[in-house]
Amino acid sequence: MKNFEFYVPSDILFGRDQEKNLPEKLKSYGKKILLTYGGGSIKRSGLYDKLLTLLKDFEIFELSGIEPNPRVSTVNKGADICKKEGIDMILAVGGGSTIDCSKAIAAGAYYDGDAWDLVTGKAPIENAIPLAVVLTLAATGSEMDCAAVISNEATEEKLLMGHPLLLPRVSVLNPENTFSVPAYQTASGAADMMSHILESYFDQEEAFVPDAISEGLLRAVIKYAPIALKDPENYEARAQLMWTSSLALNGLVTTGKNFMWSCHYIEHELSAHYDITHGAGLAMLTPKWMRYVLSDATVDKFYTYAVNVWGVTPAEDKFAVANAGIDATEKFFKSIGLPMTLAEFNIDDSRFEEMAAKAVEVGYLKGAYVPLDEKDVAEILRMCM
Amino acid sequence: MKNFEFYVPSDILFGRDQEKNLPEKLKSYGKKILLTYGGGSIKRSGLYDKLLTLLKDFEIFELSGIEPNPRVSTVNKGADICKKEGIDMILAVGGGSTIDCSKAIAAGAYYDGDAWDLVTGKAPIENAIPLAVVLTLAATGSEMDCAAVISNEATEEKLLMGHPLLLPRVSVLNPENTFSVPAYQTASGAADMMSHILESYFDQEEAFVPDAISEGLLRAVIKYAPIALKDPENYEARAQLMWTSSLALNGLVTTGKNFMWSCHYIEHELSAHYDITHGAGLAMLTPKWMRYVLSDATVDKFYTYAVNVWGVTPAEDKFAVANAGIDATEKFFKSIGLPMTLAEFNIDDSRFEEMAAKAVEVGYLKGAYVPLDEKDVAEILRMCM
Repeated sequence: MKNFEFYVPSDILFGRDQEKNLPEKLKSYGKKILLTYGGGSIKRSGLYDKLLTLLKDFEIFELSGIEPNPRVSTVNKGADICKKEGIDMILAVGGGSTIDCSKAIAAGAYYDGDAWDLVTGKAPIENAIPLAVVLTLAATGSEMDCAAVISNEATEEKLLMGHPLLLPRVSVLNPENTFSVPAYQTASGAADMMSHILESYFDQEEAFVPDAISEGLLRAVIKYAPIALKDPENYEARAQLMWTSSLALNGLVTTGKNFMWSCHYIEHELSAHYDITHGAGLAMLTPKWMRYVLSDATVDKFYTYAVNVWGVTPAEDKFAVANAGIDATEKFFKSIGLPMTLAEFNIDDSRFEEMAAKAVEVGYLKGAYVPLDEKDVAEILRMCM
Repeated sequence: MKNFEFYVPSDILFGRDQEKNLPEKLKSYGKKILLTYGGGSIKRSGLYDKLLTLLKDFEIFELSGIEPNPRVSTVNKGADICKKEGIDMILAVGGGSTIDCSKAIAAGAYYDGDAWDLVTGKAPIENAIPLAVVLTLAATGSEMDCAAVISNEATEEKLLMGHPLLLPRVSVLNPENTFSVPAYQTASGAADMMSHILESYFDQEEAFVPDAISEGLLRAVIKYAPIALKDPENYEARAQLMWTSSLALNGLVTTGKNFMWSCHYIEHELSAHYDITHGAGLAMLTPKWMRYVLSDATVDKFYTYAVNVWGVTPAEDKFAVANAGIDATEKFFKSIGLPMTLAEFNIDDSRFEEMAAKAVEVGYLKGAYVPLDEKDVAEILRMCM
């Protein structure tokens, strides 16, 4: 177990009607709120009206239309509003895209220039407007971590930025706010949180406690995602998925580990170039990556994964058990309605080498659980054909 | 899953040599530190000298001799030092007793009167001196929670106090600082953290995620406590136990649950009257309590416990499986050297009724997983004869 720091001062308000506690939690930050959201779903669901009523003593500004795979142009737009209006805090109402965009806005508000500089690290993040969240999609874990993924439409780049100042101060996790999430987004969210857990579970550093927690969280998704798909207003299923999404990425499952991911960086290239849903891309890639890295060196871990997560019966043939776990992973993603091939996303092989090179460079994949170079990544992409 | 708030802004510095980061973390609180500790073990281990060297730019005051089951008289002594010297922060170096005592001192420093009023709730906690911790015993979880248990030697009471202001701001968890913990204390600590997990695992409210995490943490203790006992300087074992102790009581395993404990309140009576080691008392009580509450209504949960935690083979006879899990629990505690009868603690039955009445009153045991009245508690105590 490696040394680590674990410090997650997000105040999580979990459960029905927790929005009502927001005014009390927010009042110390000031009066002017920038309300950020995506499309119109929060208006259709009534959440928008509910929040405006609750926050009637605050002055509300708005930035709507935040896109999936949020763009730096939107970040700059939000930062401009913050500067012009003297915004005191941001309230992100949505899923990972809205929250990530809001994190970048929070930092961008204190930066004179293109916020892309903060994403690339060309300029350091020195301050950020306090951020609060009302989560409407269980997926990215952005509600309880300090990272954001921002896309640059001009350069076709999708990069990760992170800073402790970007951690949400308060996050409202009301499972009822995910009742109306469509099946495909529910399934993609489930795949996203499973991927967050798996990326740290398969790590060069062994650590019993985070791995045992990981196995439990994975079993939670495997149990409850199909229930939520069948019965979208099943509170218990939505609640377990929502809490899992946060715990999958708040640092708990990486304590004492290397935190060197693999599939995410490959997927970021896919969604930077083709604008596909992040979780769906991960679901397609993960089983292929698993098959690609399975070897004498990794079989014991995949064996444990198969037995502890999927309930595969222990047996002498370690590879058979390991492969049964990988098969179960792929079968599960398929069963919740996610595409398992690039063809289903209408993606061909014309840009594999370009994407592979970028993934290796940005993701430091040569230091991953199983080190990957450009050829490896291109081969994993080919396995998705 | 019930509504909950999860907010644990303790900065955990985990691993070898993490003490070196303390000066940087503490400097914003001021200059005057009250260093609190128990007996001389931190002097023998060299930790005391190491910390004094690291903290050479601070002004250090000391309160030593904090006893196991810390007494309110010691709390008052510490609070007096804080008031007289204008202490800026407290650095507790030790296990649960030292940390709990320091929490009460932190609040007592802002109260004009007997700190017992803060423990009983007669006076509210309105402020507290910032608290930092260097943990030397994996057991109580006090390093990452906001509660303290204080004893009153005059009234023979042992009561729980809690307030968000008592949460440690920084906790250094260096597993090497537990290498010298004697076998009996190591085993008692293991039992204490298992009990914290079990008290919430067996709860009227079902919740998959915290329960799956609980099962993983229990397996961690079951795996690593025997290793730490056999090989006290095994870093990995000490590390897993240490991180488990914190996660067992930082609120994670109670998220969405009722948080109505049982065995702790019975044990508090035992250790209030007889000054036995808390974890050892819990180890003795827990299997008896399990047998007492096993019924048609609870057998399914005990079945799951037996299978998921102890690896008992699933079978049709649910009670046989459940009982095998309880047997395994008792056998495990015995195997790590803990007494399983009151006779081994030299405790007779003369005060059972008195202790039972107090436990039911203080612990709200009538609202526990299986409601317990005075007769039930006395019977559980008799089962320990």
